[in-house]
Amino acid sequence: MKIGLIGLGRMGLAIATRLVKNGIEVIGFDQSNDCCKAAAEAGVKIIHDVAKIAEQVRIIWLMVPEGKPVDDVIESLQFQLQKGTIIIDGGNSLFRDSIRRATDLAKIGVNFLDCGTSGGLHGKTIGFSLMIGGNKKAFESALPVFEAIAAPQGFAYMGPAGTGHYVKMVHNGIEYALLQSYAEGFDLLKNGYYKEINVANAAKVWTHGSIIRSWILNLSYEILSHDQDLNDVSGAIGENKTGQWTVDVAKEYNVPVDLIEKSLTIRAWSRQSGGNYATKLVAMLRNKFGGHAVTKKGLL
Amino acid sequence: MKIGLIGLGRMGLAIATRLVKNGIEVIGFDQSNDCCKAAAEAGVKIIHDVAKIAEQVRIIWLMVPEGKPVDDVIESLQFQLQKGTIIIDGGNSLFRDSIRRATDLAKIGVNFLDCGTSGGLHGKTIGFSLMIGGNKKAFESALPVFEAIAAPQGFAYMGPAGTGHYVKMVHNGIEYALLQSYAEGFDLLKNGYYKEINVANAAKVWTHGSIIRSWILNLSYEILSHDQDLNDVSGAIGENKTGQWTVDVAKEYNVPVDLIEKSLTIRAWSRQSGGNYATKLVAMLRNKFGGHAVTKKGLL
Repeated sequence: MKIGLIGLGRMGLAIATRLVKNGIEVIGFDQSNDCCKAAAEAGVKIIHDVAKIAEQVRIIWLMVPEGKPVDDVIESLQFQLQKGTIIIDGGNSLFRDSIRRATDLAKIGVNFLDCGTSGGLHGKTIGFSLMIGGNKKAFESALPVFEAIAAPQGFAYMGPAGTGHYVKMVHNGIEYALLQSYAEGFDLLKNGYYKEINVANAAKVWTHGSIIRSWILNLSYEILSHDQDLNDVSGAIGENKTGQWTVDVAKEYNVPVDLIEKSLTIRAWSRQSGGNYATKLVAMLRNKFGGHAVTKKGLL
Repeated sequence: MKIGLIGLGRMGLAIATRLVKNGIEVIGFDQSNDCCKAAAEAGVKIIHDVAKIAEQVRIIWLMVPEGKPVDDVIESLQFQLQKGTIIIDGGNSLFRDSIRRATDLAKIGVNFLDCGTSGGLHGKTIGFSLMIGGNKKAFESALPVFEAIAAPQGFAYMGPAGTGHYVKMVHNGIEYALLQSYAEGFDLLKNGYYKEINVANAAKVWTHGSIIRSWILNLSYEILSHDQDLNDVSGAIGENKTGQWTVDVAKEYNVPVDLIEKSLTIRAWSRQSGGNYATKLVAMLRNKFGGHAVTKKGLL
């Protein structure tokens, strides 16, 4: 099997690595030479004319920033796309954009699948969690691709166009609130009644048998066991658009999402004020799982 | 080794079962005959005069409701307690009460350890996560007890008197916010833009490789795969005092815990209003891990 991969950044490279490792030939494109170089080292065959990808493969995975970049890539491919080609958008696109793209591409006989991709940089090793929306038959045709990229049992068909990105959007909303929830607790361990509690020890014991054990908790332990003061970390938390989209859709459909919304407000506050111990930990966690920048001072 | 166990309810029985299974002789007491009967079947030697426990063992584990019941039990034991005896409070006591009890008991040569016990009813099988505060030497003397009750690596010394219950209190505050965070997300999957998303499928795929994978998510999947409408479930969420204590201490020490506090407010609202889909799921999760009652109508 052969697949095209457009976008060879952090996540694109992780996807490429899993595909190659699982015996799938990958033809890759990125505007950055550095990204191309790293991908080539991982076994990707680099192509310098993006439109040519459409001639060589019948499945194309997009791993580019949401919004205009996705439309631009589709436009640049459009005249070379062959009927029956499957385009999979593995990024964090707005589900409404995915519905529109699926509708437009269907008119020229091209299938569009929207795929939410969770797992961050660790996914490269253990595989990703994939939520896929769109035409069911196209989904089935692309099964080997999803199997190669996903963790064991880590992919599922969610429903019609947009559902994959919708479920991923909600996943991210939950993620925002989970990160903030843990961070508030660690802040209260560090800066509350006791000053002598070893916060890393608390994190560690919770990872074994407690109600709140989780992967985010494991990462918290890794961070805190290395540095529990976080003095040199900026408390300004970055974000992509998925959190705000979650809140917007929730309001539109009268679903209260108070914690998700509050975690978003706190991120905005953290960027204005520099944040606090809790937001420093959130920034570090985002860095740990997603490679998102974290600095001593200023914004991310 | 021989240990006394006062309080043989849901959690006490789980603790007893682990102790017996690990070769520790357990002398148990409870006011309820039914609880005594169940404990006897699990291999506990039942004693009907609580004060006599203090004559027969040097380590006594308390698993009774926080507040007056703990003081009452200690008072009823007091004159029989022998110097060097270790009393371990495994319940959800206020850390300030534990500091007071440790101080008072130290005056008569008795060691008091405060132990936060997390894991719910599943702990019976896989072991608990134990956070222990108090005299370090007493902690070391009781190691075989903690090893028997805990999950592998699931216990740790937290510091001076009260730290065990303090860390457990914070754990519970985090737990409140985590439950609400997931529940808001599932609500938005169920009642948002799409009506056809299989919520259980989303929960399932998230458990494999996603950023938000956790034990609470596993339980959510178990619940939702059995019933994703939750029509027959009351959305009124019960609570113990640990959530409010977390918020109170946070305010005292100027640590913002917005999400934890909001999750508490939502529980109060859920009891007034009957709640919504999200609070139904939280009520079911509490039932799943802690055996807390959940009913079709009315309060818990």
